[in-house]
Amino acid sequence: MLKKLLLFTLAGAAIFTTGILIGHFGIDQKNSTPFPEWVQEIRQDVDENLIENFLAQVDTGQLQENLQVLTRVPHMATTAGDEGTVDFMLKRWQDRDSGLDAAWREDYRVYLSFPDKDKPNNVTVVRGSEVVDYIREKEKVYEPDQSHPDVVQPYAAFGPAGHVQGKLVYANQGKVSDYEQLNRTLGDLNGTIAIVRYGGAGRADKGINAAPFGVVGVLVYTDPYDINDGKLSDVNETYPYSWYLPPSGVERGSYKNNFGDQLTPYLAAKNDTYRIDEKDITGLSPIPIQPIGFEDAMKFICELDGLEAPESWQGSFPCKYNYGGPGFKNTSRLKDCDVKLDVYNKAGLRDSANVMGVIWGSVEPGKWRPRRTLIFGSWGAEEFGLIGSTEYAEEYISKLSQRTVAYINVDISVFGNALLHKSSRASASPVAQDVIFTAAKQVKIPGSDTMSVYSNWMRHSNRTSPTHGVIPSVGYLTGAGSDYAAFMHYLGISSMDISYTYDRSKTRARIYPAYHTAYDTFSYVSKFIDPGFTSHQAVARTAGNVLLRLADSVLLPFKCGDYAETLEQYLGVALENFEADLKDNSVSMEPLKEAVKSFRAACTSLEQSISSSDFINNSPLKARKINDQLMLLDRAFLNPLAFPEKYGYRHVVWTSRSSGVPTFPGLADAASRAKTSGLKQDWAEAYKHLSIITQAISGAAHTLAEAHAGL
Amino acid sequence: MLKKLLLFTLAGAAIFTTGILIGHFGIDQKNSTPFPEWVQEIRQDVDENLIENFLAQVDTGQLQENLQVLTRVPHMATTAGDEGTVDFMLKRWQDRDSGLDAAWREDYRVYLSFPDKDKPNNVTVVRGSEVVDYIREKEKVYEPDQSHPDVVQPYAAFGPAGHVQGKLVYANQGKVSDYEQLNRTLGDLNGTIAIVRYGGAGRADKGINAAPFGVVGVLVYTDPYDINDGKLSDVNETYPYSWYLPPSGVERGSYKNNFGDQLTPYLAAKNDTYRIDEKDITGLSPIPIQPIGFEDAMKFICELDGLEAPESWQGSFPCKYNYGGPGFKNTSRLKDCDVKLDVYNKAGLRDSANVMGVIWGSVEPGKWRPRRTLIFGSWGAEEFGLIGSTEYAEEYISKLSQRTVAYINVDISVFGNALLHKSSRASASPVAQDVIFTAAKQVKIPGSDTMSVYSNWMRHSNRTSPTHGVIPSVGYLTGAGSDYAAFMHYLGISSMDISYTYDRSKTRARIYPAYHTAYDTFSYVSKFIDPGFTSHQAVARTAGNVLLRLADSVLLPFKCGDYAETLEQYLGVALENFEADLKDNSVSMEPLKEAVKSFRAACTSLEQSISSSDFINNSPLKARKINDQLMLLDRAFLNPLAFPEKYGYRHVVWTSRSSGVPTFPGLADAASRAKTSGLKQDWAEAYKHLSIITQAISGAAHTLAEAHAGL
Repeated sequence: MLKKLLLFTLAGAAIFTTGILIGHFGIDQKNSTPFPEWVQEIRQDVDENLIENFLAQVDTGQLQENLQVLTRVPHMATTAGDEGTVDFMLKRWQDRDSGLDAAWREDYRVYLSFPDKDKPNNVTVVRGSEVVDYIREKEKVYEPDQSHPDVVQPYAAFGPAGHVQGKLVYANQGKVSDYEQLNRTLGDLNGTIAIVRYGGAGRADKGINAAPFGVVGVLVYTDPYDINDGKLSDVNETYPYSWYLPPSGVERGSYKNNFGDQLTPYLAAKNDTYRIDEKDITGLSPIPIQPIGFEDAMKFICELDGLEAPESWQGSFPCKYNYGGPGFKNTSRLKDCDVKLDVYNKAGLRDSANVMGVIWGSVEPGKWRPRRTLIFGSWGAEEFGLIGSTEYAEEYISKLSQRTVAYINVDISVFGNALLHKSSRASASPVAQDVIFTAAKQVKIPGSDTMSVYSNWMRHSNRTSPTHGVIPSVGYLTGAGSDYAAFMHYLGISSMDISYTYDRSKTRARIYPAYHTAYDTFSYVSKFIDPGFTSHQAVARTAGNVLLRLADSVLLPFKCGDYAETLEQYLGVALENFEADLKDNSVSMEPLKEAVKSFRAACTSLEQSISSSDFINNSPLKARKINDQLMLLDRAFLNPLAFPEKYGYRHVVWTSRSSGVPTFPGLADAASRAKTSGLKQDWAEAYKHLSIITQAISGAAHTLAEAHAGL
Repeated sequence: MLKKLLLFTLAGAAIFTTGILIGHFGIDQKNSTPFPEWVQEIRQDVDENLIENFLAQVDTGQLQENLQVLTRVPHMATTAGDEGTVDFMLKRWQDRDSGLDAAWREDYRVYLSFPDKDKPNNVTVVRGSEVVDYIREKEKVYEPDQSHPDVVQPYAAFGPAGHVQGKLVYANQGKVSDYEQLNRTLGDLNGTIAIVRYGGAGRADKGINAAPFGVVGVLVYTDPYDINDGKLSDVNETYPYSWYLPPSGVERGSYKNNFGDQLTPYLAAKNDTYRIDEKDITGLSPIPIQPIGFEDAMKFICELDGLEAPESWQGSFPCKYNYGGPGFKNTSRLKDCDVKLDVYNKAGLRDSANVMGVIWGSVEPGKWRPRRTLIFGSWGAEEFGLIGSTEYAEEYISKLSQRTVAYINVDISVFGNALLHKSSRASASPVAQDVIFTAAKQVKIPGSDTMSVYSNWMRHSNRTSPTHGVIPSVGYLTGAGSDYAAFMHYLGISSMDISYTYDRSKTRARIYPAYHTAYDTFSYVSKFIDPGFTSHQAVARTAGNVLLRLADSVLLPFKCGDYAETLEQYLGVALENFEADLKDNSVSMEPLKEAVKSFRAACTSLEQSISSSDFINNSPLKARKINDQLMLLDRAFLNPLAFPEKYGYRHVVWTSRSSGVPTFPGLADAASRAKTSGLKQDWAEAYKHLSIITQAISGAAHTLAEAHAGL
């Protein structure tokens, strides 16, 4: 919890700097052309010199300094430290020297969960009333800032308070299939406490999946296999000697499935907003749950009785992972013991603030202004489930839906590790792939005068595109991993998430190891993630470059062709996996093929019209018409009724997916379920989702087509 | 059923003529200005000469001829007659001489309900196996076209087939409160057949409301009190001597609550679209239901036993209306008899077509073109519940949502009666009030060279506006009465419904009496509704004038101030009715007051900016920006999750309302319910709807504001 906040401000640091820099151009530039103002203004396309100038001015020293100031004290959402960073950001953005036209706060009253400072959560091992063992209450301190009194005790935010005890069992990653297998093996899980490792299932799901089997509490830990490449010892292997997680490190986090404030679904959480009852919140663990370090987890797991768990359940501890008797071995000092959880978390309403800034689009002469208005946001309470950004999206839904060209997200700017070759990483709506590439080609990687971010990225992660040949891999924004969620999934605003990351072929670490622990500090970043802050610089340059191009281009640099390619790829996967089975159930996929074809045709025709037009010397309404088509393309895929069970997900292409088949999510989930169950009603559901996606794609094609609806 | 279709084509006739005329201007005009094409084009505002020219050319002879051709044979949706009118419209619109650029069909496969030609529905009065009485199977023929074999037998479309019998009871209008009162009085309605009159409740609701009380079948008739000002006799009072309904006339209709095709909710009903099971359709009568003429109804009602029904239940029959014993009086020849319904309706899939036409917006030089593209629609299957228009809206939802400026609906152009002073009638989004007034001021009423449609309208129906003083009353589109429903309620496109109607202070007729009966023919229109077709002409002129202004104005003639006035009026009603009670339940209405204030402030500031700007001689992007704000204003009120129980309703201001309190529908319904029940959960629901409407109005205000989101 605490720690991703630190990295959230890391994001802040990169974008913060970008914002200030871009603002500066507004102060210096002069207009000296002889044209009438409005004609000159509308003909002004992207100024490449301005971009080069911007790139040159992104300064690592400034980045480093900003991060240092912003991370001086822990600043968990709504605490005094958080209020301090809000004030700091606000003052800096309000400073006229920043070049921003204005800055302000957006305040929300949101439902958050904290541990009780006076009654720390406990995990003990008990035999009757005797306490045989217990876990650490806090992480081991290696450097002074880890001992700050505001470093929050490890806890599962939004996990319920409660006092439960029972025999321990090991349930792998806490997926439904894990609990099913464990239940089959043991016959009965009633009254047990499960210990599970991070990964494979969402945090809250580890508790949600457990409860139906009668499990009464859950412990969650990070297995060194998944984060440390097996390293266990802080004497010479882990932090403070490397970026690996030390044995006492605990990943905190938000244990909730729905993004945004949970008491005000689909409404902005203002003071006076209607709130649902706490008991009506969905997507939370119904049973107490607590994260612990792997040092404590090892003590428990290596003593478990019962059959040996399968190979895929084994981790890096120097013992065999057993299922549990339930409970411990007869030969263990923990023999006959229960594990007892005492969780004192308290949830309630707190005030959280976003900081917002603006640079107005061109409405007055005399100096450079972006063609389109830029809004900068530093989101509150991201770690509690993307709350600040979601409430903002809910409050300004109409205006944002009608006018927003794009949303650029920078959360964890740099995942490190400095020693593992790093490269750019981006996930985005396909419509934005091209502008990200353009920007990445123009930025050099740290320490090189010749290698571009683009080339380096392609070297590390690439794919073969039918249209473009080998290109860097751009991910899809299919989940709610960061603050783009409300923009991409709820509002259908073309979004992108840009960062720098380590080479995943060189490590099994599923994220940088100090993530969400007490070790996730400025010093960790400076030492292990990005010494010299050159990767931060590369991210700021790339994201800023994308921003300037989106802001200033006469014609938006969005490409429907890349969207068409994605739809074609998804179609191919869907056909391969589901066409035969659907046919057996009398459902044809021809209409979907036709829809994808019509999308490609409309796009090709639009692209031809674009390439044969002179937009600079023609009525600006011509470019405006096409810009509207491109800007609203992602909006055309919204269907607010397609996924009633998934909070805030409306985009029929990018909604989160449970099925492993990488294609249209509604179809993938429904058809996968139907293939497993064979039930007629499940095939009907698959048919329904086939119609939904087919008509959404046809509808999107209509918006690209020159002709009017229906012709 | 049959008959409103006739009048649907009446609508067709007015708009048909308008379309053709407007098309003609495209053929004649020349451009001879010296300006560069695009500058000249974007500066061209509404041409008042062109409008005058259009008005002069709307010809009553042509209107009459069109209607005559289109109504030559019955043309119920999907029958041969309907296919004939589709072909005719298509050929005429495709004719280059029409001035339209193109015309085409939009085909859907929709779920419709018809009686069985071989087994006509029966209502009989039986004593054991003896048939004591029965109703007419068809309406009495006065003129040859009423005997055409395709005149459909009276039936309740979408009412289930079934065979039921029981004692008769009289249930007034079939509202919930009517059945409750009847049930309280009789103690038990199980196994009864109810007879109810039209009005007060929706057609399907008359059956839906009855079923929970154990009623097994329903007869529906039109009481002469409600339609005929009490006239009963066709010897000298009703048709063929006047416009009144003759005794055997039966109002048919669609007995379904949800608009659009019922097997493809929220999806266009293409051949291959996923369809729900028939059993999952909601909003239909679960029990057999049959409309009958008042001649038959009188025979039954005047023989009913039991207590005398209250005054408000009495109609125009020359007898006291009793509740029913249940059943008939002991002194009656129908004594001890049951009423028996045999309904053979069959529902199934049929092919229905819209006819569409287009005049392209200005993209090429050389002749007049509208600035904005015009699309003309002649909707299929309107009488079965707005099916053609709804499926079209569902199919092209993305494109229509993104680009449509307005929707103008003309259904029943003229309600008559020629002898009762007629005047214009319009219901519209408040944003369109001003342009309707502008058009109405420019059109003269039939038979006068001086009196405008506007002045005549104000004389017959007016209100005092805080802003404008006394003005004609414009209704609100709060229901799904015609094909505007999908555009206004589902897509949030500013809509208007324009017609000419009789003076309601001069008659109790709730609609023109031949509505949906076999007497609703060309000859009836020519004789009683609009001899000389001058009212049709006035409607065509007014609607066409509105259309040209919307199409050609540089700045859209939409006024947010009239929307603000409506919101202020609704706010006043809401405060008066609910503020005290909400306060007693700890809910403040201050946020709603603030929201309405912020809407007014944003609008005033926008209006000032408009009046101080020169849009003709400035960048067209300035006008475009404001046009987008005005065009999308109604869209800002959409909330697809606000009314989960109301199909297709998303507009939080105009959604249908059950409560009698004329204010924001979600709040009105929830707060009225809470006031009645006093239940805490009902007050919570009222609070929820208060937050929904408050945030929708704030959100709409943000879209009008010059400043960006949040400042």
